[in-house]
Amino acid sequence: MRFSTETIRLDLVHPFRIAREVSAHKNNVLVRISDGEMTGIGEAAPSLYYGEDAGSVLRALEEVSALPGGDPFGLEATMDRLVTRIPGDSAARAAVDIALHDLAAQRLGVPLYRWLGLDPGETPVTSFTIGIDEPKAIRRKVREAAGYPALKVKLGSEPEKDLEIMRAIRSETDARIRIDANAGWTADQAVEMVKRLSEFDVELVEQPLPPGSPEAWRRVREAASMPIIADESVLTSRDVPAMAGLVDGVNVKLMKCGGVREALRLIHTARAHGMIVMIGCMIESSVAITAAAHLSPLADYADLDGNLLISNDPFSGASVRQGHLVLPEKPGIGVAPRS
Amino acid sequence: MRFSTETIRLDLVHPFRIAREVSAHKNNVLVRISDGEMTGIGEAAPSLYYGEDAGSVLRALEEVSALPGGDPFGLEATMDRLVTRIPGDSAARAAVDIALHDLAAQRLGVPLYRWLGLDPGETPVTSFTIGIDEPKAIRRKVREAAGYPALKVKLGSEPEKDLEIMRAIRSETDARIRIDANAGWTADQAVEMVKRLSEFDVELVEQPLPPGSPEAWRRVREAASMPIIADESVLTSRDVPAMAGLVDGVNVKLMKCGGVREALRLIHTARAHGMIVMIGCMIESSVAITAAAHLSPLADYADLDGNLLISNDPFSGASVRQGHLVLPEKPGIGVAPRS
Repeated sequence: MRFSTETIRLDLVHPFRIAREVSAHKNNVLVRISDGEMTGIGEAAPSLYYGEDAGSVLRALEEVSALPGGDPFGLEATMDRLVTRIPGDSAARAAVDIALHDLAAQRLGVPLYRWLGLDPGETPVTSFTIGIDEPKAIRRKVREAAGYPALKVKLGSEPEKDLEIMRAIRSETDARIRIDANAGWTADQAVEMVKRLSEFDVELVEQPLPPGSPEAWRRVREAASMPIIADESVLTSRDVPAMAGLVDGVNVKLMKCGGVREALRLIHTARAHGMIVMIGCMIESSVAITAAAHLSPLADYADLDGNLLISNDPFSGASVRQGHLVLPEKPGIGVAPRS
Repeated sequence: MRFSTETIRLDLVHPFRIAREVSAHKNNVLVRISDGEMTGIGEAAPSLYYGEDAGSVLRALEEVSALPGGDPFGLEATMDRLVTRIPGDSAARAAVDIALHDLAAQRLGVPLYRWLGLDPGETPVTSFTIGIDEPKAIRRKVREAAGYPALKVKLGSEPEKDLEIMRAIRSETDARIRIDANAGWTADQAVEMVKRLSEFDVELVEQPLPPGSPEAWRRVREAASMPIIADESVLTSRDVPAMAGLVDGVNVKLMKCGGVREALRLIHTARAHGMIVMIGCMIESSVAITAAAHLSPLADYADLDGNLLISNDPFSGASVRQGHLVLPEKPGIGVAPRS
C-alpha cells in the first residue's frame, strides 16, 4: 500500500479563543493510504495541549508509514503496533486509523456507519461553538449561529467575565447551551459557577477542572444540577474507570484517543459505566469531522463543528440539517475535495 | 426478511457434569434470517442456570421475530430493541445477533473476523473440557484429549475430591490446565483450594465463588498465585466495573451477553480495566462456536470446545489445529451443514 502525507493550513473564521490559548489558523496533516485502486484519507489535528504540532505528527507518521502493511482490514493488529511505536502521538494514529477505515469501507462498498452497524437516522444534534470574546462580539456570533439549535459556549476565564458572556448569549437566544470550561476554573470557582449557571438553563458542563483532584471533581458534581462531562480528563478507554462516579459522561474525540477503533472502545467502556457519551472534535477539516460523524449515532450529544469554524475547508462530507448531522452515503467516510 | 427457528438435540459424548448439574443431551435452537438471496444462521444455547430452556428461547424468538426488519446492517438499533423486549433471554438475543452478523458479512463478501478487523493468525489456544468424574474415568478422558495443549478442568465439588481429580490429571499429562469451579466452593474452600492448586501448575482459576460477596472474592484473589477469572459474575459489560479489582479477568460468552455486538462491548470494557479476556461457550454446535471463534483474536484464552463435546454436531465451521482455533475463510461466520 502507498502512504503519503500533506500538511494543510486551515484558516479560522474568527480567531479562536478558549480558556488557555488563542489562534488564527491551524496546521493539520492529511494521510492518504492507497491500495493502487482505491485511496483512503485520514487527518491528524494535533493539539499543543497534548504536546503535538504538525511537525511532530509528520515525524510520527514517517516512523510508522510502513506499518499498515498490505491489508487495510488488519485494523486491530495495525493499531496495536502504532500504539506501541508512537504512544504519545494520538492525532497521528487517528489519521492512519481514519484512512484505513475509509479504504476498507470503500473496498466493502459501504459507508462507514453501515460497516459499524449504525443507523444514520440516529445522529444527535450537533452544537456550534462560541469562543471566548467580549459581550458585543459574543452577541454578534450568537446571531450568526441562529440556525443551530445548540450552542457550545467556551468559558473558563474569570467567573464574572463568564457570567457576562452568559448574559450576552441569553439576551440573544433560547437555544440549548452546553458549557465548556476547558479546565479553566479552580475547584472553588467551578463549584460556584455550576450553581450560578443553573439560572441560564444549561444542558451540561464540560471539564470544569483540570485533570486530577478527584475530590474537587466530586464537589463540583455534587453542586451541579446539570451533567458534568470529562474531556481533557479522559483520553482513552483506560481513563474511564478512574473518572467513574466523578462525572456523568465523557467527550470522545478521535484525536485524543487515536481513531475510530479506540473511540468504539471508549464509548463501550463509558456505556458500561452508565455514562453519557458526547462526541467532539478539534479544529478539523471535513475529513476528521466526517469520520467522527459516522460514529455519532452512538452518542447522546455531538459537538462536531470544527469544520464550520474554518473558512477554507478543503473537503465536503458530513453536513448539518436542522442541527442534526447528515452522513454521506458514499462508500468509506464519503468525503470529496471541494471544487 | 424471513425468520425461522429450529430446535436441535445435541447428544453429549460423555454425560457432562459440572458443579451443579449433569446432563446427557442438550436442546439448542437455530435461527435462520434470510433476505431472499442469502441466509444467516444463529444459535441459542439456553442455560438453566440463567432460567432459560429451548421453550423459553422459542417463545422469546416468537416475540421478536419481526424486529430485525429489512436491513441486517442495522445491528445497533435492532439489538437495542431486542434488549428492551426480551431482556432476560440472552441466548435468544445471541441467536439473532449471530444470524444478522452472518447475513451482513455474507453480503459484504468477507468472513466475520475480517469485518471485525481481526487477524485470523492471532487466535489463542483453546482448551478441551474435562467434566467432573471418578479418577479412573478422568484419566481415560485425559488420554482421549491428548491432542489438546490445554485442558479446562471442572472442579467445585468437595475439596478432597477436587484434589483427587487434579492428581489423576497430573498423573497423565503435562498440558496447560485451567480450572473452572463453576461457583462451587465456599469462601474458605476457595481460599484453601487456590493455595493447594498452585502445586499442580494451574494457569488460571475460573469462578471459584458464587456471584456476590466482594470481600470473599478479594480474599481468594489475595490467596491465589494464578489469575482469577469471573464467569457467572460477569454477564455483560455492565457487570465489569463491580468486579474490577476483585478478579484478574472475565470469561466472555455470547450466550451470557447476547451476541457478538455486546461481546465486543464487554471485551472493550474489560480491557479498559486492564483485565485478562477469555472467550468461552456453553454446549453449542459449530454455529455458535464458530461465531465466538471469529472474536477469539481479541482474547488471551479461548475455551471453545462446546462442539467437540457432542457426538452429532450438525455443522462444520471453526476447527482446532495444534490447539489453536482455525477460522473459516468463507463469507459470514462460514459454517456449513455436515454431510
